[in-house]
Amino acid sequence: MRVFNFSAGPSVLPLSVLEKAAKEITDANGTGQSVMEMSHRSKDFVPIIEKTESLLRDIMKIPANYKVLFLQGGAWTQFAMVPLNLGAVEFGAPRKKATYIDSGIWATKSAEEAAKYVDVTIGASSADRSYRAIPAVPPHNPNDDYYHFVYNNTLVGTKWPSIPDTGSVPLVSDISSFILSEPLDVSKFGLLYAGAQKNLGPAGTTLVIVREDLVGRAPSWVPTMLQYKTHAAEASLFNTPPCYGIYMIGLVLEWLQEQGGAEAMGQRNREKAELLYACLEESKFFHSPVEKSSRSLMNIVFFPRESDPEKCKDIENRFVKEAAAAGLVNLAGHRLMGGLRASIYNAMPIEGVKALIDFIKKFELSL
Amino acid sequence: MRVFNFSAGPSVLPLSVLEKAAKEITDANGTGQSVMEMSHRSKDFVPIIEKTESLLRDIMKIPANYKVLFLQGGAWTQFAMVPLNLGAVEFGAPRKKATYIDSGIWATKSAEEAAKYVDVTIGASSADRSYRAIPAVPPHNPNDDYYHFVYNNTLVGTKWPSIPDTGSVPLVSDISSFILSEPLDVSKFGLLYAGAQKNLGPAGTTLVIVREDLVGRAPSWVPTMLQYKTHAAEASLFNTPPCYGIYMIGLVLEWLQEQGGAEAMGQRNREKAELLYACLEESKFFHSPVEKSSRSLMNIVFFPRESDPEKCKDIENRFVKEAAAAGLVNLAGHRLMGGLRASIYNAMPIEGVKALIDFIKKFELSL
Repeated sequence: MRVFNFSAGPSVLPLSVLEKAAKEITDANGTGQSVMEMSHRSKDFVPIIEKTESLLRDIMKIPANYKVLFLQGGAWTQFAMVPLNLGAVEFGAPRKKATYIDSGIWATKSAEEAAKYVDVTIGASSADRSYRAIPAVPPHNPNDDYYHFVYNNTLVGTKWPSIPDTGSVPLVSDISSFILSEPLDVSKFGLLYAGAQKNLGPAGTTLVIVREDLVGRAPSWVPTMLQYKTHAAEASLFNTPPCYGIYMIGLVLEWLQEQGGAEAMGQRNREKAELLYACLEESKFFHSPVEKSSRSLMNIVFFPRESDPEKCKDIENRFVKEAAAAGLVNLAGHRLMGGLRASIYNAMPIEGVKALIDFIKKFELSL
Repeated sequence: MRVFNFSAGPSVLPLSVLEKAAKEITDANGTGQSVMEMSHRSKDFVPIIEKTESLLRDIMKIPANYKVLFLQGGAWTQFAMVPLNLGAVEFGAPRKKATYIDSGIWATKSAEEAAKYVDVTIGASSADRSYRAIPAVPPHNPNDDYYHFVYNNTLVGTKWPSIPDTGSVPLVSDISSFILSEPLDVSKFGLLYAGAQKNLGPAGTTLVIVREDLVGRAPSWVPTMLQYKTHAAEASLFNTPPCYGIYMIGLVLEWLQEQGGAEAMGQRNREKAELLYACLEESKFFHSPVEKSSRSLMNIVFFPRESDPEKCKDIENRFVKEAAAAGLVNLAGHRLMGGLRASIYNAMPIEGVKALIDFIKKFELSL
C-alpha cells in the first residue's frame, strides 16, 4: 500500500508518472530499449531531453535568451559553480564581489563555499532569530557581480515574500524547493538552480536556468565540467547526462501541464498549506514557529508547544512513530533543526494533507 | 520487442533487472514508496546503498582500506577530481607531477584536464598509430605523485594487456568500460573510477574506489563537492546521492553475483569477444584494426576492408541501417572515430553476439 510521504527530498512523485515509467521500463516509445539503456546521442534519447526542456520552457515561460541545463551534483555543486562562473578570476586578478542573504542553513553553506572564490558580503541574516523569518534586506550594492538568495528554505520552512530588486546586478537564486510550486518571473533573474528531487523528479539531476550573457565568464582554471559554457554549448550533451532522471522530469512536467501548470499548482499549494497552517494555529499542542509573512508553502515546520525539552522530544518521537504506523511517513524535522516538518510538494495530494490534519487532531486527543 | 543494443554507453541492462525495477517502482521492499521517492537518509534507503556497496566489495574483492564512493558527474568530472585531489597544491606551492599514458581520446582529454592542476608527463602514446594498440610504457618516474591510464579504451576498442608496475607511485585508472568485465586486483591501484553507464547501471552515478591514505589531500580551494574526503567522511551521503541509480547498480550486482561473479563474467566475455573477432578475421569485407595483444573484450571496433573512403562510408551507413532494421542497434563507431563498433558488455547475451555474426555474414553476401 502506498504511503503519504512528507519527505523534504527526495520526495513524493505522482503515482501516474511512476506507473507510466514502469510500463515503459523495458521498451520505451517502441524502441525495444529502456530509457536507461539508450545512448544519450541516439535518435531515441535526443527527443526525450528536447521534450523535457521544451515542456519546462513552456510551463515556466523561460525567455529565449536563457539556457536550460540538465547537470549533476545537486545544489551543493551549484554552491561552487555559481561563484566559479560569475565571480572567480584568473590567478592574481583582483577578487570580485557578491552579496549573499543568510535566510537559513543552506544559504549559509552556499555563502561559505562562495567565499573561496569571491569576496562575499552577508547582506542580511535572520540567524539571530533562528531563521524564523526572511530578513529585511538593505539596498543592493551596484558594484556586486551577483546577488544570491535561497527562495524557499526547505529546512526552516520559510519563503521569500517577494523578489528583491537588484537593478543590473544579476540575481541568483536556489529554487530547489520552490521551483514550479507557483508561477515565477524568470526574467528577473540572472541564474536559477534547483536539485530535481523535490518538485521535478528523482535525485541526480540538477537544473540550471542561466541568462546567456552570464555564460562563458569562468576563468580557465575552473574544471571543464564546472563551467556553464561546457554544457550550454552542447545542450547538456557534452558528456553523458543523467538520462533516466531527465526522462522522469519530462513525465513529471507532462503531468504538471495536465494539472494546469504553475498557476494551478500555486493555487492548490496555497490551499494545502493554508489548511495545515490553520490546523496548527488552532492546535493547543503544536505551533508553527515561522512568521506569517515568511511561511513556506512547501515545507511546513512545526513544534510541540511543550516547553520542557525532554518532554518535547518525546512528543516528537511519538508523533513521528505513530504517524508512520498510520501511513504518514518522513515527518521528522531536519536533523540540524529538530521539531517536525511536513513537506507538501506538488505531488502531495490534498488528501495527504487532510490525512495529516486528521492525524494531528487524533494525536492531540491522546496527549 | 526488445532489441540487441550494442551501444557503448549508456548500454544494455539485464532484462530481469529491468523487470524487477518495474515491479518495485511504486512500492519497493514494502515501504509504500518508490526508491525514487525515498529520503536518502531514511531507514528505507540506507540499507539499499549499504547493500550496493557491500555487493561491490564482495564481487570485486575490494580491500578494507579502500573507500567506495558513489558520486555524480561521470568520468569527465573525475578527469578533474583526480588531479585536484592527488596533485593540486595550495596557491604558490610548487606544482606536483603525474604521468599519463595516452592510449586513446579519453586518455588525452583526462591528461589535458589534469594539466590545469599538475605537471603532466605523457609517458607514452600510441596516437601515431591511431591508437590501434596500447603503447609500450617506459619505467615509471618514482617522483610522480600518481600515474594514470585508461584500462579499456571504449572509443578505439583497446584494453591494457597487463597492469603497469609503478612501485609506490599510486596507480590511477579509468575503468568505466572495464569494470566487472573480468576479475581485477584492486590492491594494485591507488584509485579507480568508472561511469556507471556501461557495466554497472544507468548513467548518472560515478563509482570511485580510493585507497584511504589518498583521501584528504586536496587543497582548501578545491570545491567541497570535488574533494574525495567530503564524500568519504559521509559514506556518499554528504548530499543527496543519485539514489535510484545506486539502487539499479545494486540490482545489476545481484544479477552479476547470480551469474557467477567477475570470474564467470570474464570467461563469458572472452567467449563472446573471441567469436566476434574470429568472424572478423574470416571476413573478406570487414576487419578489426586493433593489434591482437591490445584487443578489448567490451568494445569491438571494425571497419570495411574497402579502401575508397566514400564507398567505405556507404557500406558503414548501410550496415548500421540494415542492422537496426534487424533489431541490432547502435553499431556505428564513435563520432570522432568512424567505422563500426559493437559494445558487448556483461548484459549482452551471447545470443546477441551470435545474431550480429549471422547478420555480418548475411550482409557480406549482399555486397
